[in-house]
Amino acid sequence: MKKGPITGKHGLQIEVDVAFKDINPVNYDVLVISGGRGPEKMRLDKDALEITKSFAKENKLIAAICHGPQVLISAGVIKGKKATCWPGIRDDIIAAGALYEDKEVVIDGNLVSSRSHDDLYAFGKEMLRIIKQF
Amino acid sequence: MKKGPITGKHGLQIEVDVAFKDINPVNYDVLVISGGRGPEKMRLDKDALEITKSFAKENKLIAAICHGPQVLISAGVIKGKKATCWPGIRDDIIAAGALYEDKEVVIDGNLVSSRSHDDLYAFGKEMLRIIKQF
Repeated sequence: MKKGPITGKHGLQIEVDVAFKDINPVNYDVLVISGGRGPEKMRLDKDALEITKSFAKENKLIAAICHGPQVLISAGVIKGKKATCWPGIRDDIIAAGALYEDKEVVIDGNLVSSRSHDDLYAFGKEMLRIIKQF
Repeated sequence: MKKGPITGKHGLQIEVDVAFKDINPVNYDVLVISGGRGPEKMRLDKDALEITKSFAKENKLIAAICHGPQVLISAGVIKGKKATCWPGIRDDIIAAGALYEDKEVVIDGNLVSSRSHDDLYAFGKEMLRIIKQF
């Protein structure tokens, strides 16, 4: 992903302030991986996977919702972890060794995951609860 | 999936002539699973998975392109098979035990798979070659 403006599928434009390749994960405390079609591209970006691996290794907070856990599969950090995701990729996180739970939010140590936008309240609430413990 | 007209994301309308639940796989010789967003829904349909399992068990031709192999993961029929798919789900078929190859078309016994619409010619050609051997 490059620095600069990008437009989402609903027309919303946001400014990407830093590219994955220019991120040093040491300078960040929380990794939030959102859903949609993005994770299928993000999981092919080796810099994004290195960032994800670094967060997992350092036991820093990783939050992933909807299709976000696709990145966790590719980074090899979901095996043996309790997690949830969008139903359409449920069998993929199971095949990758995750312990799937069909709940609005699942917490396993440093990993917070949710199924869809319907779960956003619970997802955000648990993220904040863990951040406050830092 | 229900019988009746459906509209694709590009506005093309087609008539579904039979629902998965009303299909007896014994009456069919070839299963073609196309790509796009459909496979994430098809893989959650237990009747579609039973059809897929039946084809695999009977060694009948299964052809899957792009996101189509997601259905093969959920049906549990891709483990140990040489296959390819859309790059964004590559790590999912690998996690499910497929022997991934980055080629326009991959053939392993009764299974034919391709990566994307750019591979449609090779995909169709190999399907036809195998059908002619019936």
